[in-house]
Amino acid sequence: MINARVYVTIKQSVLDPQGNAVQNSLHSMGFKEVEKVRVGKFLEIKLDTVDRQEAEKRVRDMCEQLLANTVIEDYRFELEGL
Amino acid sequence: MINARVYVTIKQSVLDPQGNAVQNSLHSMGFKEVEKVRVGKFLEIKLDTVDRQEAEKRVRDMCEQLLANTVIEDYRFELEGL
Repeated sequence: MINARVYVTIKQSVLDPQGNAVQNSLHSMGFKEVEKVRVGKFLEIKLDTVDRQEAEKRVRDMCEQLLANTVIEDYRFELEGL
Repeated sequence: MINARVYVTIKQSVLDPQGNAVQNSLHSMGFKEVEKVRVGKFLEIKLDTVDRQEAEKRVRDMCEQLLANTVIEDYRFELEGL
């Protein structure tokens, strides 16, 4: 069993309206030290496999094909044996 | 400047319909080895402060008050000096 942790973030050059909304809320709640907020996704995926190299290839394919919109999003992931 | 990375995840005991939807999609795309998917949020927050202890307290307050719904979500965060 391999556990993949996938992080999907909006590219730096792309506007992040959700991040701006969170930032505005934090400011109005008194957290004035907040300079910038970016919101992304975090996925935990359990894979029924033991082949780490194969898992890496498969998770990359999942990211490219479904989990991330690579036009506006970056992704990175870590694998962890269970 | 301190950079906080906040991870908000749905508690293990709570249903995750978004995770199930992603899992079903991955299965129908041929990724049959996927056993479970949980979807959470990942936030990057830039703080205009240099006091690490104070930053830790403030980020915890942000999580408790806005970023996480602690009834159904867990959170954890890391701080990184810039």
